Amino acid sequence: MNFCSNCGERLVVLVPPGDDRPRFVCNACETIHYSNPKMVVGCVPELDGRILLCRRAIEPRFGKWTLPAGYLENGETVADCAKREAYEEALARVENLKSYALLNIPFINQVYFIFRAQLANDDYQAGNESLEVKLYRTDDIPWSELAFPVIREVLKLYCGDLVTGEFPFHMVDIAPQTGMGGAHQ
Amino acid sequence: MNFCSNCGERLVVLVPPGDDRPRFVCNACETIHYSNPKMVVGCVPELDGRILLCRRAIEPRFGKWTLPAGYLENGETVADCAKREAYEEALARVENLKSYALLNIPFINQVYFIFRAQLANDDYQAGNESLEVKLYRTDDIPWSELAFPVIREVLKLYCGDLVTGEFPFHMVDIAPQTGMGGAHQ
Repeated sequence: MNFCSNCGERLVVLVPPGDDRPRFVCNACETIHYSNPKMVVGCVPELDGRILLCRRAIEPRFGKWTLPAGYLENGETVADCAKREAYEEALARVENLKSYALLNIPFINQVYFIFRAQLANDDYQAGNESLEVKLYRTDDIPWSELAFPVIREVLKLYCGDLVTGEFPFHMVDIAPQTGMGGAHQ
Repeated sequence: MNFCSNCGERLVVLVPPGDDRPRFVCNACETIHYSNPKMVVGCVPELDGRILLCRRAIEPRFGKWTLPAGYLENGETVADCAKREAYEEALARVENLKSYALLNIPFINQVYFIFRAQLANDDYQAGNESLEVKLYRTDDIPWSELAFPVIREVLKLYCGDLVTGEFPFHMVDIAPQTGMGGAHQ
């Protein structure tokens, strides 16, 4: 961040009065420019004991498998976002959403919020951001071909809960990874 | 948003290729400037059947009562944020955090995430952003003097759950209000 998005002047970095950390500040128009984590929202879409995964048609992690999820948009609830992403990435309608997990990824300033959801029917296909979409039995999840550690973590929680039949709300902190082909998450 | 924070040129509003909604875009350096909802994180601090409320020393809603909560910062987990806010606003140490509720406020692009938490001890006092802090029995909650509808909603859920003794994870959408003294939440 170099310039003030309000007036166009150069920004400085300083701790504003009453604050406790450095911010980008415009001395010309006195705007403080805050930067905060973004929410990524998605779901585990279920149908007859299987879950729907999407193979990414976009970078990062082109060709790897993921759950339908994406950035929460302004004006949107988290449930709306999960439904929109399932439709955009898998042309799938999901319903009966249940809050399932929050995953912190503080080193990239992201918070994932994940629902469990039911696929309304078996009418789905790859959206623009997917190469293919496929229902997987949990025994067949392509663990070595998952796009991100956060997705692996959600699926591990889910498979574990399937064993007990109980799906409590989970909170997990994701640590930086060195493996996964250099993925930054 | 008028100017590019990267290069300082004037921004335009357009739907980028592959996107489905208007964004602020810089034609000079080709940066797309996304705007996304912010997370506000806090807790219901409990001690011996009472809960800690803070009377705001800042606008908006100066002088009104609220739960300790604030914007999630970069590099922070939601649990870290809830603990930090309890300390900043009430000089209180909270522990044993349990995920309790997510509240969507889409018309102001906010998502509240609220924990239940235990006060570590009765050592607390007003921080810089509070006029006073006080332990309230649920029978004595100052309902007409609460700062925001979202706080009222959390406290209503909490009082309801106290009756059953069960505290499931809640998800609530907050609607625009016309009362509450014109508060925009």
